[in-house]
Amino acid sequence: MGHVAVVGVGITRFGRRSDTTLQELASEAGRMALSDAGLDPEDVEFLAVGSMGGWSSESLPAVVVSEYLGLERAGSMRVEAACASGSAAVKVAADVVAAGGADVAMAIGVERMYESPIPNVVEYLGRAGNYFWEFENFGLTFPGYYAMYATAYMNKYGATEEDLSEISVKNHYYGSLNPYAQFREPVKIEDVMRSRYVAWPLRLLHCSPISDGSAAVVLVSERVARSLTDSPTWIRAIGSATGPSSITRRDDFLGFLAVRRAAEEAYRRAGIDPARPLRQVDAALVHDCFTIAEIIAYEDLGFARRGEGFMLAKERQTYIGGLVPVNIDGGLKAKGHPIGATGVAMAVEAVKQLRREADPGRQADIKNGVVIAHNVGGTGHYAYVTVYSM
Amino acid sequence: MGHVAVVGVGITRFGRRSDTTLQELASEAGRMALSDAGLDPEDVEFLAVGSMGGWSSESLPAVVVSEYLGLERAGSMRVEAACASGSAAVKVAADVVAAGGADVAMAIGVERMYESPIPNVVEYLGRAGNYFWEFENFGLTFPGYYAMYATAYMNKYGATEEDLSEISVKNHYYGSLNPYAQFREPVKIEDVMRSRYVAWPLRLLHCSPISDGSAAVVLVSERVARSLTDSPTWIRAIGSATGPSSITRRDDFLGFLAVRRAAEEAYRRAGIDPARPLRQVDAALVHDCFTIAEIIAYEDLGFARRGEGFMLAKERQTYIGGLVPVNIDGGLKAKGHPIGATGVAMAVEAVKQLRREADPGRQADIKNGVVIAHNVGGTGHYAYVTVYSM
Repeated sequence: MGHVAVVGVGITRFGRRSDTTLQELASEAGRMALSDAGLDPEDVEFLAVGSMGGWSSESLPAVVVSEYLGLERAGSMRVEAACASGSAAVKVAADVVAAGGADVAMAIGVERMYESPIPNVVEYLGRAGNYFWEFENFGLTFPGYYAMYATAYMNKYGATEEDLSEISVKNHYYGSLNPYAQFREPVKIEDVMRSRYVAWPLRLLHCSPISDGSAAVVLVSERVARSLTDSPTWIRAIGSATGPSSITRRDDFLGFLAVRRAAEEAYRRAGIDPARPLRQVDAALVHDCFTIAEIIAYEDLGFARRGEGFMLAKERQTYIGGLVPVNIDGGLKAKGHPIGATGVAMAVEAVKQLRREADPGRQADIKNGVVIAHNVGGTGHYAYVTVYSM
Repeated sequence: MGHVAVVGVGITRFGRRSDTTLQELASEAGRMALSDAGLDPEDVEFLAVGSMGGWSSESLPAVVVSEYLGLERAGSMRVEAACASGSAAVKVAADVVAAGGADVAMAIGVERMYESPIPNVVEYLGRAGNYFWEFENFGLTFPGYYAMYATAYMNKYGATEEDLSEISVKNHYYGSLNPYAQFREPVKIEDVMRSRYVAWPLRLLHCSPISDGSAAVVLVSERVARSLTDSPTWIRAIGSATGPSSITRRDDFLGFLAVRRAAEEAYRRAGIDPARPLRQVDAALVHDCFTIAEIIAYEDLGFARRGEGFMLAKERQTYIGGLVPVNIDGGLKAKGHPIGATGVAMAVEAVKQLRREADPGRQADIKNGVVIAHNVGGTGHYAYVTVYSM
């Protein structure tokens, strides 16, 4: 792709945000991103809104977000790729700029999940799997899917519930240092292991929460980037792929083919050696919707060999100072997971890390200037891997 | 933008399609487009699915469409811009190719509106306007919005109900020649004028129908296009813009600022003189969700001066042989308007016209090799103008 820079980032506090409407929430992040970029709403030529949105009375969110933020000149649309909607929005906005369709574009991710009417959030999210056979006929929802993945993984490789719990402890620790995080309380292994089962072996503290929130990025062409800043962050590569919707069509439940394909594409385009990505990657934001998902992500991204991802958790190698810091913003687990916002929030965090502007205690050591974001939608159907670099 | 070619097109019959599921319907169009291109599903690297979809049990349609069509390798997402969702999908797929993110991409638009549960279709569509004030508080739905536009137009310029009806007569005439059209019966002015009022001055035969249907295009890079065909169709330019959601923020109801902005951008990028577009445009597909919308489109696109669009209808200048043939596939009015499919169906028709493959009696005279598509979402919020050329 052509050169696309991120020159502005914004994020709202994640959590229960009954103080705002959808458009106010999105505008809170959007205005912060514009201000960070030193640009005005009328500079924006294109807006992609990442939102799953089925629970919202605003069923067509791009209209109201665009209007509320004063982006009327900009072309706009909503994009949705289930829980990867935010990364899909970043991709769309980046491609518009790379294709020469705009010099200044924005991606805003936003979700207000607490306002979900019946069907409730977990029920609605369940439709992001294989609707007809697995949701409608077998009643599978996401804790169930990921519990199956966890069971398969534990059975095959000998990981324990405690190993999964290490992910939760790490992510809550970093969430406690992030003022935008939904959960700011550290938890201990015992706390995780005492929380109630949602779907065995996953307990409440193995699950990401229901969240409201928004995140925004301003993406510009190289020419505009050079005029605004001496140190832009670049979108070096995006990989995306789709996997089978039905889990009956998977070879195993131990990893996501779509993620491996997306990572392969992203690494190839970014010039990262897929056999040794950690020689270049300074930090990663991965899609820990459930703790097992983070462990699988380590393997799908090539940070660990298959079957050895849980060892990184057990040995605490994904804290700052370890092999590679992962989810040092709290991850979906503690920062929160307002669906459409999540992928954009990963972009925001990647930029903050690369600018060395992360909060005290959670700044990664930036040596190579590369941070990657891994965002999964559905039960592994949609995968987006994005490489951000200095 | 870089050079992006359309090398494959497919479309289903529009109408009540209770014989299929969403994914079957999309695959019907998708397979036809791949076959037309001479490509296989595994060649496709990216898929954008245009679908509004709030009425569907498949609330996340890109997953199932992708799987059913066998596009598992491709990255995918759903895009939505209300009634312009199809054009938004074409834009996303085109930008992916133009940005170098894929050599082969598809855009598939699909909608199954007949399966809408409560809230019903018109109620659901009403949310695509200004939700809080105009829909929730005042109960405005789309026939109401467009009736206001028609009233304002007739009052200001002296157009009559009969003038509006001319649009319906023309579009039903061309629909009668299109085997994929929902309505294949020609209608006379008297038939239109005898149909019942939906919202004065708009009668039933002034309104586009509820439809199921799908359309698909295969978009490729210049390199792949040259390897597949000697005569690709090119996406020469796309213009997009957003207007105010609330009609209280419009200067008048006589035209759409967003459309004029999108047309200006598209004409500029395509090198078309905005003061005399008809010197280059051989035919146009415009968003005639209601007859008044086609008349306003003539003016917003610069085919007629403001206030004189209805004269084109009255003088039958938008039939083949007239000033510029418009909606010679039947338009939304007679071909049908399965929301997400509409913008992609315009792409399909533009390509057929440019290839001189339209059905007998409805092939435009292709002199300059330029056909434009005009797709509006919401009450004028989203506008996409796409220029296709030989």
